[in-house]
Amino acid sequence: MLGPTPDGDRYELTTPTAMPNAGGFLWNQKMMIQVNCRGYATAQFMQPEPAKYAHAPNLEAKTFMQPEQNYYAHHPGRFVYIKDEETAQLFSAPYEPVRIRVDRFVFSVGKSDIAWTVEHLGIRVEMTLGLPTHDVTELWTIKVTNLSGRPRKISIYPYFSIGCMSWMNQSAEYRLDLGGVVASSVTPYQKAADYFKNKFLKDKTYFLCETPPNSWETMQQAFEGEGGLHAPSALMEPNLAGGDARYENPAAAVQYRVALEADEQREYRFLFGPALDEAEIIAMRDKYLSKDGFAQATRDYAWYIEQGRGCLHIETPDKDLDNFVNNWLPRQGYYHGDVNRLTTDPQTRNYLQDNMGMSFIKSEVARKAFLTALAQQEASGAMPDGILLTEGAELKYINQVPHTDHCVWLPVALEVYLAETADYDLLQERIRSVNGDNYTAFERFCRAMDWLLSERDERGLSYIAQGDWCDPMNMVGHKGKGVSGWLTVATGYALNLWAAVCEQQGKPDVAARYRAGAQEVNAAANTHLWDGDWYARGITDDGVIFGTKKDREGRIWLNPQAWSILGGAANAEQRAKMLVQVDEQLSTPYGVVMFAPPYSGMREDVGRVTQKYPGSGENGAVYNHAGVFYIYSLYTIGESDHAYKLLRQMLPGPSKADYLQRGQLPVYIPNYYRGAYYQYPRTAGRSSQLFNTGSVSWVYRCFIEGLCGLRGDATGLRIQPQLPSAWDGIKVTRLFRGAKFVLDIRRTDVKEVKVVHAGQPLPEAHITGIQKGATYQLTVFVPQ
Amino acid sequence: MLGPTPDGDRYELTTPTAMPNAGGFLWNQKMMIQVNCRGYATAQFMQPEPAKYAHAPNLEAKTFMQPEQNYYAHHPGRFVYIKDEETAQLFSAPYEPVRIRVDRFVFSVGKSDIAWTVEHLGIRVEMTLGLPTHDVTELWTIKVTNLSGRPRKISIYPYFSIGCMSWMNQSAEYRLDLGGVVASSVTPYQKAADYFKNKFLKDKTYFLCETPPNSWETMQQAFEGEGGLHAPSALMEPNLAGGDARYENPAAAVQYRVALEADEQREYRFLFGPALDEAEIIAMRDKYLSKDGFAQATRDYAWYIEQGRGCLHIETPDKDLDNFVNNWLPRQGYYHGDVNRLTTDPQTRNYLQDNMGMSFIKSEVARKAFLTALAQQEASGAMPDGILLTEGAELKYINQVPHTDHCVWLPVALEVYLAETADYDLLQERIRSVNGDNYTAFERFCRAMDWLLSERDERGLSYIAQGDWCDPMNMVGHKGKGVSGWLTVATGYALNLWAAVCEQQGKPDVAARYRAGAQEVNAAANTHLWDGDWYARGITDDGVIFGTKKDREGRIWLNPQAWSILGGAANAEQRAKMLVQVDEQLSTPYGVVMFAPPYSGMREDVGRVTQKYPGSGENGAVYNHAGVFYIYSLYTIGESDHAYKLLRQMLPGPSKADYLQRGQLPVYIPNYYRGAYYQYPRTAGRSSQLFNTGSVSWVYRCFIEGLCGLRGDATGLRIQPQLPSAWDGIKVTRLFRGAKFVLDIRRTDVKEVKVVHAGQPLPEAHITGIQKGATYQLTVFVPQ
Repeated sequence: MLGPTPDGDRYELTTPTAMPNAGGFLWNQKMMIQVNCRGYATAQFMQPEPAKYAHAPNLEAKTFMQPEQNYYAHHPGRFVYIKDEETAQLFSAPYEPVRIRVDRFVFSVGKSDIAWTVEHLGIRVEMTLGLPTHDVTELWTIKVTNLSGRPRKISIYPYFSIGCMSWMNQSAEYRLDLGGVVASSVTPYQKAADYFKNKFLKDKTYFLCETPPNSWETMQQAFEGEGGLHAPSALMEPNLAGGDARYENPAAAVQYRVALEADEQREYRFLFGPALDEAEIIAMRDKYLSKDGFAQATRDYAWYIEQGRGCLHIETPDKDLDNFVNNWLPRQGYYHGDVNRLTTDPQTRNYLQDNMGMSFIKSEVARKAFLTALAQQEASGAMPDGILLTEGAELKYINQVPHTDHCVWLPVALEVYLAETADYDLLQERIRSVNGDNYTAFERFCRAMDWLLSERDERGLSYIAQGDWCDPMNMVGHKGKGVSGWLTVATGYALNLWAAVCEQQGKPDVAARYRAGAQEVNAAANTHLWDGDWYARGITDDGVIFGTKKDREGRIWLNPQAWSILGGAANAEQRAKMLVQVDEQLSTPYGVVMFAPPYSGMREDVGRVTQKYPGSGENGAVYNHAGVFYIYSLYTIGESDHAYKLLRQMLPGPSKADYLQRGQLPVYIPNYYRGAYYQYPRTAGRSSQLFNTGSVSWVYRCFIEGLCGLRGDATGLRIQPQLPSAWDGIKVTRLFRGAKFVLDIRRTDVKEVKVVHAGQPLPEAHITGIQKGATYQLTVFVPQ
Repeated sequence: MLGPTPDGDRYELTTPTAMPNAGGFLWNQKMMIQVNCRGYATAQFMQPEPAKYAHAPNLEAKTFMQPEQNYYAHHPGRFVYIKDEETAQLFSAPYEPVRIRVDRFVFSVGKSDIAWTVEHLGIRVEMTLGLPTHDVTELWTIKVTNLSGRPRKISIYPYFSIGCMSWMNQSAEYRLDLGGVVASSVTPYQKAADYFKNKFLKDKTYFLCETPPNSWETMQQAFEGEGGLHAPSALMEPNLAGGDARYENPAAAVQYRVALEADEQREYRFLFGPALDEAEIIAMRDKYLSKDGFAQATRDYAWYIEQGRGCLHIETPDKDLDNFVNNWLPRQGYYHGDVNRLTTDPQTRNYLQDNMGMSFIKSEVARKAFLTALAQQEASGAMPDGILLTEGAELKYINQVPHTDHCVWLPVALEVYLAETADYDLLQERIRSVNGDNYTAFERFCRAMDWLLSERDERGLSYIAQGDWCDPMNMVGHKGKGVSGWLTVATGYALNLWAAVCEQQGKPDVAARYRAGAQEVNAAANTHLWDGDWYARGITDDGVIFGTKKDREGRIWLNPQAWSILGGAANAEQRAKMLVQVDEQLSTPYGVVMFAPPYSGMREDVGRVTQKYPGSGENGAVYNHAGVFYIYSLYTIGESDHAYKLLRQMLPGPSKADYLQRGQLPVYIPNYYRGAYYQYPRTAGRSSQLFNTGSVSWVYRCFIEGLCGLRGDATGLRIQPQLPSAWDGIKVTRLFRGAKFVLDIRRTDVKEVKVVHAGQPLPEAHITGIQKGATYQLTVFVPQ
């Protein structure tokens, strides 16, 4: 049913029904497209705000990218109907809209293309989707082959839905001069000022055919007729009617009537995308719509994706894991760091963490991100809720809600960047902010830490305001008094990390100040939030502590435990207690849930703790971005088996039952799996299908610095692998500061990690004086 | 295919495919539901802003009520699947989702219910929808009868879609204790303040069954399965699976497995609506879900609708017209006046005109509306863009865009109210406004007229700002300089109307002032806007006059011509020229278009005239609200044949070809028919299917005051019929100031209208001293 190709850079699915929502995604710096195995697609492009060129059949709400898309008959998709002209039999590739059980189905997700092979009625249809590197358009190749061993007469009907473009005006027609369907619309506006904003929007959608079709239809309803999309009336006629759409939902349907000899193949190419005007459509056609144009774009795109190949290649006893870590994990990290989730105002914490991951892939991008973020620091030292990336961008959605955690992520992300690059010069960069103040990066970090220290109550606990990171607890502290247990211990972590940088920078007095601050917040946490076996999640405006033993719901939360380990609030005895409780109360076969038991409703009694309900969205779910910090914290205390088990749970499979339940191919980490394992076992573990997640940088870090133990410092590379105890050894290639490290890591009878280079054991597991361009062949012995 | 019942209070359609979007609507003061013949439905209720309890399959944009709904497979609807358990044959009533051509189909739109009769496979399904008068719920009766003359085993599956309720959380389950499907959701919020606004929203949707079903399914996708909504997989099984929905789109599907003897009938009742909590669900069930409960609600609702029967009953040679005028036109007017289009911030011009129509139906409602509107007059004398009807309501959408015409509608609407009631006391009411100022209604009218006079440029023409009424010309005057030709002549009309009231109130000096103002604006219009054969539409910020002979598009506009007649700007010679031009350039078989030729795009060259394109929405369309003023103006100058012809065009039919092209049953006037008759004949004339329109009050007025010529004044009722010349006579019943006038109007050899009462000719065609409760039998002779 499912499996990787031998080198793991493609994943294949051989039925469209077992995991109906499973899919893959492609992107470039201007667009993103997510397609599922059945042919439904969600694409967006930046102009500069996210926009669509293929729409739902109704007026959709503008919203951030949603998890768990609901697919339905008229969801936008890219389909090919095939009609046998001799028998009138019909099927469609990939699967929708006809939904016929075909003889062969392969959905194949690659790193730089997505493809299907569908065979039925003796006809093979191969569909391939690619993207260019710098333009917004879809490159579709559709090959049709006669497998039946006899001459055939068939019609081939590519059908690309365009949907409801606008309530103001929409229309479509086939343009013989342009060679395709052009749908036009007007983005509505009512205030005069919006006219000037909208007038350069790409309000046209084109579907261009390299090979002129025999007939076409451009109105969705006329194509569908009374038959429905699963059996369009238009396909009962010899030819499509050549109709236009006038204020009706457009669609692009074309017909190729072909006679195929046995084994004969036809190959068609199409472009599908948005344009401002006809000139742009012509330019896109000229640039891409040819065999050579597609081939060049394919090469360019593969090269583009290759730039994100990352810094780690592993060979372990777990081949599925190897495939994921070598191919898909850096690709997902590259997507995050390269395009910032295709928003113009990424949340500050996301922006910093996505770029933290980019430190492993393209560190110059990460450097620029620090400078961009710090230039938007507020006069108070606070970081804003989102980082504006384009002129005219605005804070939207959740970024209009005050959160108090953004400063925490500065030293957290910086730690990785410095470990990877040793680029301490960054700290001396002088940055004039949007407020006009002018400080070095070092000073800005100090100001951010000072702000964290200042935003605490009389007990020394950190205010939560309307939220702290991923827990949508926007009611806990909206009156300005409630505090966050997680943010308190996270502040400790941030301060300690920054103190270490201060020390390295030769400023022991500054370091001491922040270390003292860290001790203070950790002490406050232990005084007010330690509940005997774990840390509480917070205290509401009304003084009610929650996330404690006395709670029926939301009794224990993962984040305060993980971060108390990272930040040093928890001592060894506390850690031991917490680990047991996390294991007992939060673990599920699909990972560690964010908290348990899930809430069945808003807790009005304690000052309204949470807005979301069991298993949905963030709360009560296996929220991977929370889970990975727990995993990372386990590596920091040497709990390597435990860490590996949880890391492995974060990837779907490899068992068939697990894939099926998750409903996702292992080509990315989703932001969550459904929780409520005990309450709703039917849906527990189901993937959100949303690949925007802060967890990906951390999972990569866990493999690089944790499992492989290959972490940089100011002078070189430290080697401290933490293999699962069941493994005898692994092979690793690590790119680091321009050099290549090829490691053969073996478990053997040593007391501590021993590194052998060029036949010589090194005095310590630390490589210094690294030469750019050099390759280091290392044998690493780790204790049994 | 189509026709009225004998007394015209129902309209029937006998195929679901000829006019697929044709439908009807029901409402009460808290909700509205529009259903089409195929079973799709759009319902909204007020809490206090418009909300839904049955949703699209995706997150829909919140928007004002849209014309020309796009229906698609998963559009919300109310359906009944019937499966023959012996043959596994399937069909659905009314038509969707299975779309089988049935043996008999009747869609029947009544004034207080909507019903279907569908016969197939020897089974009759009768579906009836009713509403209660004061609650938000749908009352569904589904009767199933065995017509086959032999015992049958069938399953009956009501299927009501619920759709995507929320991205935050949604779920559904069948509640044995409540006897139905209950779907729950959480309205999303991110800012803490919104929590308090949202917490009392009715976030549950219930589907309650009087008769317990044999099985059920509450998750849309599980019901549909791989079969699709047209052939749900769940129906292939003996029983529905009894599943729940957890973060999946809910639906309400239940199964009744029944054995029916020949001619046996089963009757089922269901409630479908929103609720805050279980207590409300139980209360609704107890109140309505029984035979008696439905019967009582049906009686109450019929009584409620009867309150809107209006003041006119006609018998003419045109029976279709009689049906419309006697039954549907006052019903539509009542809807507008009674519920203000189910918004909390009706546009001021709409609010005044809807209540103008209410003067004919329930004049006390109109009186209250004047007081409500005047209390929101701005300190400057301007009227706001919308009238806020509930606490916490806000100006939304187009109401945030400054329009300059609202004051015009005050005396225009007042004229009808005074003619109908002679309630001059209204003018002495003292009204403290939201600004704190305190004036009588009379003074407020004067202030509004003064404001109109003040908002003119140095030429004496009226500023347009970002818009004047129905023409979406929000770019003509956004810099504050552009002027409106229509508003200039409309100001003349408003001033003259108000001057007449001032005279009547014994204030000749005030009257003289406003008459002088009217002469001034009319003179300005003639100086700057008369283009030789018609008036121009306006002059842009950049000084470009448009709506003139030199224009290729938007050459002539209807509104300035109609209102120059009403307001007196045009003299007899000008009127004669204009009428010819309107006829030649603007008339189509579906009515007079708003302007011609339609724009093919924004006119950047003349300061951006319009935002909408041919045939879509308002521009270039047969915009009935504009057309009716032209008709009304024709009555004011005795052009009765011309007026009648255009009035008749405003109603679909009666020819079959005309109904088909319009795609609408003649149970309401839509806000527009598609224009671009010469450019896009395929779609020209198509109904918007949107029954919110300011035209309805005016059409009623045209029949009452124009065609029937029965108009009130300060002392009584004037009688001046303007029958079409082809008619020999009509019979009219007119309710007026508590009396009933029964008129037999005959064309005969008289020079002027002669009225005979109780055998005695009256000295003039004017009834005075009207006695409440009395019936006046009048014979009226009109010239040939």
